Amino acid sequence: MIRFWEDHPEIAGRLEAVRDLILQRAASDDPDVRAAVGQLLAASGKMLRPAFVLLASEFGTPDRARILRAAAAIEMLHMATLVHDDIIDGAPLRRGVATLHALRGPRLAVLVGDWLFASCFSLVADLGGDTHGGELARLVSRICGSEISQSTERFSASTSVRRYLRRIAGKTAALFALSFHVGAGQAGCTEAGVSILRRLGYNLGMGFQIIDDMLDFSSNAAETGKVPRGDLCQGIYTLPVVHALRADDGVLARALERAPRSRRAAARAFRIVAGGEGMRLSREAAESYTRRAMLEVSRLPESPARETLRSVTGRLLLRTW
Amino acid sequence: MIRFWEDHPEIAGRLEAVRDLILQRAASDDPDVRAAVGQLLAASGKMLRPAFVLLASEFGTPDRARILRAAAAIEMLHMATLVHDDIIDGAPLRRGVATLHALRGPRLAVLVGDWLFASCFSLVADLGGDTHGGELARLVSRICGSEISQSTERFSASTSVRRYLRRIAGKTAALFALSFHVGAGQAGCTEAGVSILRRLGYNLGMGFQIIDDMLDFSSNAAETGKVPRGDLCQGIYTLPVVHALRADDGVLARALERAPRSRRAAARAFRIVAGGEGMRLSREAAESYTRRAMLEVSRLPESPARETLRSVTGRLLLRTW
Repeated sequence: MIRFWEDHPEIAGRLEAVRDLILQRAASDDPDVRAAVGQLLAASGKMLRPAFVLLASEFGTPDRARILRAAAAIEMLHMATLVHDDIIDGAPLRRGVATLHALRGPRLAVLVGDWLFASCFSLVADLGGDTHGGELARLVSRICGSEISQSTERFSASTSVRRYLRRIAGKTAALFALSFHVGAGQAGCTEAGVSILRRLGYNLGMGFQIIDDMLDFSSNAAETGKVPRGDLCQGIYTLPVVHALRADDGVLARALERAPRSRRAAARAFRIVAGGEGMRLSREAAESYTRRAMLEVSRLPESPARETLRSVTGRLLLRTW
Repeated sequence: MIRFWEDHPEIAGRLEAVRDLILQRAASDDPDVRAAVGQLLAASGKMLRPAFVLLASEFGTPDRARILRAAAAIEMLHMATLVHDDIIDGAPLRRGVATLHALRGPRLAVLVGDWLFASCFSLVADLGGDTHGGELARLVSRICGSEISQSTERFSASTSVRRYLRRIAGKTAALFALSFHVGAGQAGCTEAGVSILRRLGYNLGMGFQIIDDMLDFSSNAAETGKVPRGDLCQGIYTLPVVHALRADDGVLARALERAPRSRRAAARAFRIVAGGEGMRLSREAAESYTRRAMLEVSRLPESPARETLRSVTGRLLLRTW
């Protein structure tokens, strides 16, 4: 069972069904696709995005099979971005497991990512009728745009809070919002309902990403499955760094303006950020987005799904992994 | 003007409009996307696929603006596959120009490819109504499947004609067929008309790819813009090689079972293929597909578009670049 959802066996069970559906899609294809997709699914973490599709659909009248397919499409889109991100970042590990490109080379990783993108769109097209193909596609261009900015801004110590927020809005928050939107839309929610759920997703996504970026500066790599100081060494300067740079007297900026040349330089930059005000200010920002998410939750009609969303929102803020 | 279309100024002019539309799409995005897309378009070759969309639409009642967008979507899909292929193959040159990943690194190339995929789907979704989003998506999965087989079969001297044909059917011929299909479909052609045009595209694509693979064994790299012996060194064994292997007494197979260790070994394998029966048999196969394409052309109603297709089909067989 997926650890994050062990107190919600209903959701956990349906997320297993989402996994099975994705495996099924891959089964008809090349053996290498199948193996790669199986490996990715085995390390698939919390499966938040498909869970949000399922939960959002509970505020309408969901056709279970249809919602399952929508959830699978969203997860495949997310998997595609992870696989390509790992190539881009040259990341050896994700969630403590060797990445696809590290295991099998960038060649297969590029292709499996493309296969996942295409399969996501084809799954959405198969839903037929008034589906979200266009929105998905526009979202993917937006995600790519954010990734490209992130990529071209690497090792720039002159980045700003505003630029950071824009980047994570286009990357994480947009996909969270879409997950809620697709679930609610497919279940025929009212426009007002869709709009509350969409805003919930956006704020949850912003808070989630800030916490995620902060976890990069926590020491327990074993629990997060991340490479310690991964973002910092990649020149991706997240909110704790941006805040630390504002309070900096030049030492940090000098260390960050280029790829740290020594382990000691990287460790020094890490200590300045991890021990500084940047972490506290980042936590405040995450809390503020979480409060806004909670406000949207309280606008939803009373129901078990609402209570699940309330508990998940709280747990995502407090998590250490 | 695009050299291949200089005798068809009408098509050449509209292909320029397709380019402008793609640039326009990119203009609203990140400056790096814009630059990369501009660079790709500047080296965009014959633009056969969008030209086929335009030509096929002439057999119905085309809405010019709509067809232009469909043609742009198809070209963006093609561009996306090229960008990702070049990463996969580690190709330094395409059409004599440095590839995006060689110039700007795999990071940007992965992202620009993704951006192109997504923009293609979003352009198709914008067409609205009974569009080809699902077919495009399924085609992309199929193309990825073919690429993955090609990738996992590298350096295998036990490949077969059948496997080679299946691979190029999934890669080139499927996209050629879809280009005709989309053009005809968007212009409201009859089902019979769509089906002739689709078959024309398929056969044209098969012939085209065989010729393309043969050009790898011609000596005039300057004209083709290819890296001499590119496929052979990559372990991608195309039809001339497959045929040569069948007539081989073991020398070629031993040279090909692994990445050639020396320039001399690669040159020897090249000479065996280029000078052997494989080239003649490949040409016969290309001619056979071209004949089938010509047969489909003759089934079309008499019109200037039919004459253009006839002349293009002939020229693609005889081309040296």
